[in-house]
Amino acid sequence: MPEIRENPATKRWVIIATERAKRPEDFKKSIEAAIEHPAYDPKCPFCEGNEKPGDEEIFSLRAPGTKPGEKGWYVKVIPNKFPALVPPQAGDSIEVKRHKSGMYLHMDGVGKHEVVVESPIHNKTIATMSIEEVSRVIRAYQERYMVLDWDPAYKLVIIFRNHGGKAGASQVHPHSQIAAASLVPLHMRYALMEAQRYYEELGRCVFCDMIKAELAEKERLVMQNEKFVAFVPYAPVFPYETWIVPLGHQTTFADLQPEDIEPLSQILHDVLAKFYRGMNNPDYNYCIRSAPHYSSSGPYYHWHIQIMPRLTTPAGFEIGSGISINVALPEESAKFLREIKI
Amino acid sequence: MPEIRENPATKRWVIIATERAKRPEDFKKSIEAAIEHPAYDPKCPFCEGNEKPGDEEIFSLRAPGTKPGEKGWYVKVIPNKFPALVPPQAGDSIEVKRHKSGMYLHMDGVGKHEVVVESPIHNKTIATMSIEEVSRVIRAYQERYMVLDWDPAYKLVIIFRNHGGKAGASQVHPHSQIAAASLVPLHMRYALMEAQRYYEELGRCVFCDMIKAELAEKERLVMQNEKFVAFVPYAPVFPYETWIVPLGHQTTFADLQPEDIEPLSQILHDVLAKFYRGMNNPDYNYCIRSAPHYSSSGPYYHWHIQIMPRLTTPAGFEIGSGISINVALPEESAKFLREIKI
Repeated sequence: MPEIRENPATKRWVIIATERAKRPEDFKKSIEAAIEHPAYDPKCPFCEGNEKPGDEEIFSLRAPGTKPGEKGWYVKVIPNKFPALVPPQAGDSIEVKRHKSGMYLHMDGVGKHEVVVESPIHNKTIATMSIEEVSRVIRAYQERYMVLDWDPAYKLVIIFRNHGGKAGASQVHPHSQIAAASLVPLHMRYALMEAQRYYEELGRCVFCDMIKAELAEKERLVMQNEKFVAFVPYAPVFPYETWIVPLGHQTTFADLQPEDIEPLSQILHDVLAKFYRGMNNPDYNYCIRSAPHYSSSGPYYHWHIQIMPRLTTPAGFEIGSGISINVALPEESAKFLREIKI
Repeated sequence: MPEIRENPATKRWVIIATERAKRPEDFKKSIEAAIEHPAYDPKCPFCEGNEKPGDEEIFSLRAPGTKPGEKGWYVKVIPNKFPALVPPQAGDSIEVKRHKSGMYLHMDGVGKHEVVVESPIHNKTIATMSIEEVSRVIRAYQERYMVLDWDPAYKLVIIFRNHGGKAGASQVHPHSQIAAASLVPLHMRYALMEAQRYYEELGRCVFCDMIKAELAEKERLVMQNEKFVAFVPYAPVFPYETWIVPLGHQTTFADLQPEDIEPLSQILHDVLAKFYRGMNNPDYNYCIRSAPHYSSSGPYYHWHIQIMPRLTTPAGFEIGSGISINVALPEESAKFLREIKI
């Protein structure tokens, strides 16, 4: 009998498809599919040495004495050349106007869309970086998050990483993206509302309760350190989905403290290294889910990183019903990930 | 400047990515990718002639004098061999019990999961069938929909079709699926709620208003007949997404009248034939969106078929923000589809 489970934070139901369950081995990418890339690609727009005069650099961490726009960077944030959203014109109001076109509503695609180039080296990825290198990526994330989240023009800031073609990545060079939009999507509105309902009823943060449950039950734990815990959620939408959550209550990603950066880098690196080694570098997305600063969601939302391996294709069932079918048993996925040596 | 548009029925915002917009030609499958399949495959479980003694047949339309389980069927509905949900045991209560496991909620995966084998011929598809053949598929859909929707054990019945590997199809043989679940997913709850809000405010069905707007503006129309209209929605989540909607107000798929079956078959066939010929048989999902019979959503929900070509890969942006980026301009998509001769 399949089991249907609910994620108490998102209220999404997920079918754990015991009748069609697959073994961890069934998800491994074949070794042949794990293409090797060179450390430098002369055609890559992100490789060190391929900078062009006049390249804009929004933020960077670089070697002492080097200048923005030139070589010598460790991590840099640049504008996306094909932005989904574009900055407002100088002098524009920070309120993005809604317009009516007959019965329909539309607005200008105002926002920011930035690329975090995570390393000067073409064939690195978070899983193969040093903790110091990952720390610089996290510092760049937070630096930009703080700036964009506090800008009253933006109502939603998302940080995400697409790794591999099945995850929608078009560039091999290690990079993440940051987007700021002038609207609160339904998605976020409902996530905040559900967290608030839980808080109303029990007076506790649903994420804090999940952490307590996972640390007590242990069977879905992947790893933990002094500041963070990584676990496969009870009702994961994606096979091998893994959440990294701060152990202490932190509402937004802006609450991350300077001393949290190293432990976060370590756990993010280690979890991704487990995927990299244990499943032959699978394609994945991750995104940082955070309450916006203005939502006054202090006691009830709790930021976290959601890692979503792209091992299956959502089909008509998922799209039509909004219910996911997960063909990996969460407890077995966690055990498999726990046991991978890195 | 990209434009952000809202779908008034779903309240989802979609970015129409003018800066990265693609031409219709960019989406065409290469001719080489459009593999030819044989009319009969000795290994296919769905081909006529491959029936096995004892095969269960839930419903069929067949040649006079032929018997269930044997050759001679035109369309048949059979149990899914790898069901995501399984029927309740005889004597079980129709109320599927929720159980607590610590803080988490779960329940048995009770439901139905059926396959509609649409043709005895291996290499047919809706786009290449006769209208009479498509009508039989629609009759089978409605027959099963009526039975499952009225069964008090089920709260959601979805009918969907996965066409091609990118749409999650694992079998080439033409088929659709019907699933009945014992829960109302968030997804549906919100869709009904938003339709109700619109009705509360304006006293009209939001779908009826969309039809009126599309027929008046004409630029997103794909085609129409005396009973149905096909259009690209104002804010499509998928490039070339197309909705087929009954012109008269019909709340649930059960409201489809016997005399509607032929015009529905004709428009579904013709729209899919346009995709088949104009874009070289692209992968797609479609699903029938309908209010459940018990929702008393009579005046405000309006069933429709949502056709979703799978031409792009949703990545971290879409998953993280819940906002889609559509790289096809809806008005241009509709014009392209309108002009394809079938």
